[in-house]
Amino acid sequence: MSAQFITIEGSEGGGKTTNLELMKTLLEDAGIPYVVTREPGGTELAEQLRELLLACRDEPVTPQAELLLMFAARSQHVENFIKPELAKGNWVISDRFTDATFAYQGGGRKLSWQLIEELELIAIDGFKPNLTLLLDLDPNIGLGRAAQRGEFDRFEQEEIEFFNRVRSAYLRRMQEDELRFMLVDASQSLEDVQTSITKQFNAFLEQHR
Amino acid sequence: MSAQFITIEGSEGGGKTTNLELMKTLLEDAGIPYVVTREPGGTELAEQLRELLLACRDEPVTPQAELLLMFAARSQHVENFIKPELAKGNWVISDRFTDATFAYQGGGRKLSWQLIEELELIAIDGFKPNLTLLLDLDPNIGLGRAAQRGEFDRFEQEEIEFFNRVRSAYLRRMQEDELRFMLVDASQSLEDVQTSITKQFNAFLEQHR
Repeated sequence: MSAQFITIEGSEGGGKTTNLELMKTLLEDAGIPYVVTREPGGTELAEQLRELLLACRDEPVTPQAELLLMFAARSQHVENFIKPELAKGNWVISDRFTDATFAYQGGGRKLSWQLIEELELIAIDGFKPNLTLLLDLDPNIGLGRAAQRGEFDRFEQEEIEFFNRVRSAYLRRMQEDELRFMLVDASQSLEDVQTSITKQFNAFLEQHR
Repeated sequence: MSAQFITIEGSEGGGKTTNLELMKTLLEDAGIPYVVTREPGGTELAEQLRELLLACRDEPVTPQAELLLMFAARSQHVENFIKPELAKGNWVISDRFTDATFAYQGGGRKLSWQLIEELELIAIDGFKPNLTLLLDLDPNIGLGRAAQRGEFDRFEQEEIEFFNRVRSAYLRRMQEDELRFMLVDASQSLEDVQTSITKQFNAFLEQHR
């Protein structure tokens, strides 16, 4: 079968980093060659755009500019990294992809869903992952976990609302394309989360290797 | 009357730099406060994007990424420079603006006209100049003039075709919005070009000052 493009998504405290490591191990165990990448980023220019996007600056960044920069970086990432790697036979795992734009810019920042869909077509011709692992979690739990790690302590109540919208947008995105998604309830213990991912991901590997 | 947003457009060898100076002199003579800016650029982030756009790099830039970066820079330029300057009562002259994207990316690179129109709406909500000076010139003449200055001597016949498409796209853009444009035949002598601009631009100033 052809090489598969896999993304991992979810908001803070859902265990994205840990479970990305688990997927790498499962791919290695199955003897499948893969590369790992991230968004925004993944190519030289896309990483430069990531720096511009994440830099603190006095000049406010318009929501439109942020969205256009995200998709400009994504166009470079798809054409100059993801597609070439898949063509070489390497599976690709990306830490976030277009679903994150729907979740954060669409849900979180309330930008128009239709606008993001238009840009998905314009920038990358609607290119989508074969499989998306969505680590779903109540933000009250996720932000609590992140706070335990000493991160995100600046979050206030109104920012919980932002993450509630991010979560809803991820779930909406899943409902619009259910077959692509592997939904995991990240409120479970890490052991239960990893048992669930291992079972579902190995089934996917069986189908597609 | 309110401050006006003016752009100057045209392809190589049409005298954009010289005639921008003329417009500045005419504004000064009329006692009108103004600022000069350029595209891509005009704000800190937009200038950083300009550098990324113009930098030579091994990584190819997709046509989509180029277009999205242009409009991301333009969104910053409009919101963080042009509109605030107009609000302060300063007229704004920009060396190139959206018409150049239609000309170079649309005409020259053959990207879809409709796609650029969509991005014009997405990025800057269709914001347009009050007046656009278009210096129109047969590229055979323009490139000859540029070559006399020692520039563009690497241009070959196939690149003339590129500039023919740029010229046609500028003229199409004008036909779609005639009242905004001040068309000047840049094949005339510089003296005649400047007489024509002085007459038309002073008439515009009379109407809008």
